[in-house]
Amino acid sequence: MANITKKVSWSSRADESGATGEGTPLLNGSEQPRHSRQDSLRGRPKEIPHNEKLLSLKFESLDYDNIENQLFLEEERRMSYMGFRCLEISRWVVCGLIGFLTGLIACFIDIVVEELAGIKYQVVKENIERFTEVGGLSISLILWAVLNSAFVMVGAIIVAFFEPIAAGSGIPQIKCYLNGVKIPRVVRLKTLVVKVCGVICSVVGGLAVGKEGPMIHSGAVVAAGVSQGRSTSLKRDFKIFEYFRRDTEKRDFVSAGAAAGVSAAFGAPVGGVLFSLEEGASFWNQMLTWRIFFASMISTFTLNFFLSIYHNNPGDLSNPGLINFGRFESDSVAYNLYEIPLFIAMGAIGGLLGALFNVLNYWLTIFRIRYVHRPCLQVMEAMLVAAVTATVSFTMIYFSNDCQPLGPEHTEEYPLQLFCADGEYNSMATAFFNTPERSVRSLFHNQPGTYNPLTLGLFTLTYFFLACWTYGLAVSAGVFIPSLLIGAAWGRLCGILLASITSTGSIWADPGKYALIGAAAQLGGIVRMTLSLTVIMVEATGNVTYGLPIMLVLMTAKIVGDYFVEGLYDIHIKLQSVPFLHWEAPATSHWLTAREVMSSPVTCLNRIEKVGTIVDILSNTSTNHNGFPVVMQVTGSDEPAKLCGLILRSQLIVLLKHKVFVELARSRLTQRKLQLKDFRDAYPRFPPIQSIHVSQDERECMMDLTEFMNATPYTVLQETSLPRVFKLFRALGLRHLVVVDDNRVVGLVTRKDLARYHLGKHGLEELQLAQT
Amino acid sequence: MANITKKVSWSSRADESGATGEGTPLLNGSEQPRHSRQDSLRGRPKEIPHNEKLLSLKFESLDYDNIENQLFLEEERRMSYMGFRCLEISRWVVCGLIGFLTGLIACFIDIVVEELAGIKYQVVKENIERFTEVGGLSISLILWAVLNSAFVMVGAIIVAFFEPIAAGSGIPQIKCYLNGVKIPRVVRLKTLVVKVCGVICSVVGGLAVGKEGPMIHSGAVVAAGVSQGRSTSLKRDFKIFEYFRRDTEKRDFVSAGAAAGVSAAFGAPVGGVLFSLEEGASFWNQMLTWRIFFASMISTFTLNFFLSIYHNNPGDLSNPGLINFGRFESDSVAYNLYEIPLFIAMGAIGGLLGALFNVLNYWLTIFRIRYVHRPCLQVMEAMLVAAVTATVSFTMIYFSNDCQPLGPEHTEEYPLQLFCADGEYNSMATAFFNTPERSVRSLFHNQPGTYNPLTLGLFTLTYFFLACWTYGLAVSAGVFIPSLLIGAAWGRLCGILLASITSTGSIWADPGKYALIGAAAQLGGIVRMTLSLTVIMVEATGNVTYGLPIMLVLMTAKIVGDYFVEGLYDIHIKLQSVPFLHWEAPATSHWLTAREVMSSPVTCLNRIEKVGTIVDILSNTSTNHNGFPVVMQVTGSDEPAKLCGLILRSQLIVLLKHKVFVELARSRLTQRKLQLKDFRDAYPRFPPIQSIHVSQDERECMMDLTEFMNATPYTVLQETSLPRVFKLFRALGLRHLVVVDDNRVVGLVTRKDLARYHLGKHGLEELQLAQT
Repeated sequence: MANITKKVSWSSRADESGATGEGTPLLNGSEQPRHSRQDSLRGRPKEIPHNEKLLSLKFESLDYDNIENQLFLEEERRMSYMGFRCLEISRWVVCGLIGFLTGLIACFIDIVVEELAGIKYQVVKENIERFTEVGGLSISLILWAVLNSAFVMVGAIIVAFFEPIAAGSGIPQIKCYLNGVKIPRVVRLKTLVVKVCGVICSVVGGLAVGKEGPMIHSGAVVAAGVSQGRSTSLKRDFKIFEYFRRDTEKRDFVSAGAAAGVSAAFGAPVGGVLFSLEEGASFWNQMLTWRIFFASMISTFTLNFFLSIYHNNPGDLSNPGLINFGRFESDSVAYNLYEIPLFIAMGAIGGLLGALFNVLNYWLTIFRIRYVHRPCLQVMEAMLVAAVTATVSFTMIYFSNDCQPLGPEHTEEYPLQLFCADGEYNSMATAFFNTPERSVRSLFHNQPGTYNPLTLGLFTLTYFFLACWTYGLAVSAGVFIPSLLIGAAWGRLCGILLASITSTGSIWADPGKYALIGAAAQLGGIVRMTLSLTVIMVEATGNVTYGLPIMLVLMTAKIVGDYFVEGLYDIHIKLQSVPFLHWEAPATSHWLTAREVMSSPVTCLNRIEKVGTIVDILSNTSTNHNGFPVVMQVTGSDEPAKLCGLILRSQLIVLLKHKVFVELARSRLTQRKLQLKDFRDAYPRFPPIQSIHVSQDERECMMDLTEFMNATPYTVLQETSLPRVFKLFRALGLRHLVVVDDNRVVGLVTRKDLARYHLGKHGLEELQLAQT
Repeated sequence: MANITKKVSWSSRADESGATGEGTPLLNGSEQPRHSRQDSLRGRPKEIPHNEKLLSLKFESLDYDNIENQLFLEEERRMSYMGFRCLEISRWVVCGLIGFLTGLIACFIDIVVEELAGIKYQVVKENIERFTEVGGLSISLILWAVLNSAFVMVGAIIVAFFEPIAAGSGIPQIKCYLNGVKIPRVVRLKTLVVKVCGVICSVVGGLAVGKEGPMIHSGAVVAAGVSQGRSTSLKRDFKIFEYFRRDTEKRDFVSAGAAAGVSAAFGAPVGGVLFSLEEGASFWNQMLTWRIFFASMISTFTLNFFLSIYHNNPGDLSNPGLINFGRFESDSVAYNLYEIPLFIAMGAIGGLLGALFNVLNYWLTIFRIRYVHRPCLQVMEAMLVAAVTATVSFTMIYFSNDCQPLGPEHTEEYPLQLFCADGEYNSMATAFFNTPERSVRSLFHNQPGTYNPLTLGLFTLTYFFLACWTYGLAVSAGVFIPSLLIGAAWGRLCGILLASITSTGSIWADPGKYALIGAAAQLGGIVRMTLSLTVIMVEATGNVTYGLPIMLVLMTAKIVGDYFVEGLYDIHIKLQSVPFLHWEAPATSHWLTAREVMSSPVTCLNRIEKVGTIVDILSNTSTNHNGFPVVMQVTGSDEPAKLCGLILRSQLIVLLKHKVFVELARSRLTQRKLQLKDFRDAYPRFPPIQSIHVSQDERECMMDLTEFMNATPYTVLQETSLPRVFKLFRALGLRHLVVVDDNRVVGLVTRKDLARYHLGKHGLEELQLAQT
């Protein structure tokens, strides 16, 4: 069962793990027999069937705390004030580049989708028009379904076979990354390429998906790449930005990249900054915020500029994002006080529908984890969904008799006449026979009366289930646009119903306004983001007047939805058993102290340690610790050894690779001193211990860790309460926290030790650690 | 010299200090002879003449780290999950109340100002009209000047004599509070009353001030009051929200209050949240952010609702803030790509003018600190400014010959005909003879040609100096609106010039658009807030289209301005020598370690300590420490004593007051155990040690501190670098950080030890600690 999980999970392709040794799960110091209250946790965690009450041991953490060893301090002290200024300037340059490239990628996706979708709809439309009179529309249906499936097949194949991590929107993965969890291969160049191609295929393939979510992931990959000044995939090192080759700096840039992605997707630079801050930066730093903001601005501006050229209107900056809600005229946007209860009610509906969506998708995901795990099955499922989407759309259009007159300056891109009279078009087709972005816009802005209620009702129903089925397929795709589309449809329906049942309704119940509110409610009900989502919606609307109603609606949707089930992203994070740290420790966890939470005993190293011991400890696959407290025995005393530092597996590996042994240093006096650069060159793909050859003679040598260990690790006492430990850990982005008693090491607290505790329905619950 | 400083400083009225003993400067554990590199710091800091290179010792810190002693942990452990839910709900209720009351206060200020100013302008207008024909306009001038001075006199008297802390906008004070510095009396009810009355008087008195800044302070006071469930000033305790009676919780509510204030002032709920987060919350917590957002929403909604009733248009929610930029029509808001360099240039101008403003105001403030320190002098200065403002305005209007035709549906509230032909009005009077909010709006929205360039140029010049002179007077007033007004004037001038010198300019160079950009540039150049300011401006404009230009302009203004001088608020914070902690330690401070930074030796207490010793330590006015490490001597060993906790002065005072002595507990077995409630009841105005009577017998008793001390204080090693210490201190909101060596206390790091280091023009500089 467990390897089933592994196959569809984010973390690794099954064929890779074990083959190179890199895929070997690297545990995080939490593996020793635990002196826990739960007997089930004693001994090595078993491989247990997948469920959401597990915490996977396979995810490593990132080091968001600077490793302050002597090398680092020496470098910092050598650097002049001008040096820091130059660093600061290069940070700005990197952020500018991130924004620019993210904008370019968004632009590329938009233009390619636009062109390909245009060709596809033109072909199908001509085909339908040819067969409407003579009969045999089933041929058109088959053409449509085959075209869709073909595109989706390509998209699914590259995702399922080449880079499974590129599936979905990537937002949960980026959330985890910013939280401090290392998701393998999430910010690699290959992932970006697959993501971009995949999203083009799935949108052109007519799935109920959007191209906005993946932009956030794309921006993050761009950031991780640009900021390192090299590409391991391309084997190119530009020898620039070497200072930024560590987790702390990289995280900051990835925040900027994610913000630039949001900004390009929705034309919402402020929303992007807020998104990054909400998800990532636990510590708000003004300069960092400014840089993130800068990246966002550049990104939306780049997109806007190139799209204006593409649209033959250079300099017209009216397309700040991939999705454009269109302009809400000031007159129709006005709302009255008595409409506010209506908005709140719509928020509640959005919360309910969102919860339903999430529950259905949860079950579907469980089903997929169990039964749809082989790549070829995944591709087939994706193709099936594409064909079904086309069929359902076609059926809906075919049986719809909602004909609308085609105005002289009609905005419909591909009006289908079908069985309507001349000069009229099928209104269901505007919703289905169109890219989702266009459908959203037409729901927001078309004249009252463009859609009849039955069309909207049926559309909501079918699109709801299609979108729910689609999310989680092995294709790159976002859930924002489908959510907005579902919400806009039922929102518009609400508007029409209100206009018909109230006497004055036809004056104030503008269907476009209600479509917007419905879209906000549905999106809020599904993803449950908060402040950032409000700002994103307001920025995408381009009109602040709607600020208050949108806030109210999102808040209501969140409260109602949270009552039933978590947000969609959180569900997927939980299903992957990621050790995700929330904002605070569970409220009722004050009775737990570091003593209960920590892992012990801890594998410690001596300050001057035998190479053989180090190699043995690092090679021990059953423990696989990543951080080791360094201790020092006071000579000539039988006191217990005192803590004097903390060293990481990655540092030890570099030391072993460069053979920094005391004996060798004595014999080869001219040997180059190991520098921070050597650690940076190896970052982030440190070789596995198995690839490092240590001869039998060398095993007898000694290694002096003094210079390389972090001599001032943060420590806590055993009696410290869990909330206090949690706060320290989370606020400083720690990876290992040493628990001491009178300066003796008694335990180690890692991310998994903290993430285990969560508030369930029956109070505090403890998740099981497992090797899934 | 030093007591001069004290008199006009934020922290205390001179008559209070020394009289009650409460005003005695309470130092923060940093007073022992310092083993510092600077000889001048050896020994007790001297009272030195005021300059900005000082760090005042009189400001205490706030405890933003929970004091986790046994009492606290017992209470938390007793509390059920439902208990925590109820707490969470009451937090929401409190935030709702804060928003509601802040909105009401804003509404009250707005209506009263509106009414009083209306009467004033009506009276003066009629008088001017009467004397225009017959001559003798000097009588009108005198009437106007006397009216202004009278209002300002009232405003200045209540501020200067009753509550000096209510002077100015209060934003620097709130910034300091949220940063963790205790500014005496800043969140008291009396301050609020004086603030509200003062701001009404100064706005009605025609000073170049706004009523927006003070709203932030008012919101903060409301929050601090409501969340404590009692008012010490009114001697009422409602016995509710007792859980919130500590600095951590109160800080969170004050953040919400400040956000609600911004929200009410500018109709910018998102901007308010960002303002609070930028200034205050070092650690972003999603639930807290939501609550702050809720308070902001309620606040703007309340204001909007009541104002709509006042304007006889109930339910029309178009007045979300005190300042309303009016509606920018979609056509005029469009901008072209080639205008962006122009905007950036205007940003640079704004930065330059802002820097000039700040430098002038800095010199003026130094002058005021030295020579204008008596309350009566302050009142006289304020009256002088009021009279000069009226005279200058009158002269400008008198000599202006910019007559404009009075349209049929003119929007001018008080059109002055003066020497213009019938059916025309004096255009200079629209700018001067009006509340500043109305002037801003008319600069933004009046038709092109309403103002001639000379009028605008003269207006900019005079208003610039008037506003600069006004800021820092002993009146409650904000600098936002004057900044906007100056900027709008020169911005409009730029627009007019552009239209005249370029061939196509008259099409795209809408003066209203340029007025908005100029306003943003000037405001950004003066106050230098960043992300929050952008959002505030965008929200106040009500149109997202201007987002990008406003961002660019604010960024340019900040970069240009920062090159010369800091922002206005930062200048005033520095002039008060507040130990303000910035986001990060100075870049080049890696060569400093905790050993150099800390204060030592430290006054420690034994876990079971003699009452006499404690009283002596607390009474020692020459040290006046606030936090004491608690140590334990291992019995029968000559090892140095080990750290086992940390206790605060305030806790010791409560213990002494309740006579929690070991001997008494033995004799009176029935004695009630001291509870957390006793500490909460004493919060936040703990009595001075002088008011507690301890008899000679009692001095011989012992006190057991085990239950009351924080048993798990955060510690660092001596070798920890300053940036690392800084990060821990700032991220967790600490007040005392114990420096240990092998669990022995070797020093204590407090806020002042960290705030001393700053980056000057010649690298790292150290501020002097002084008793100013």
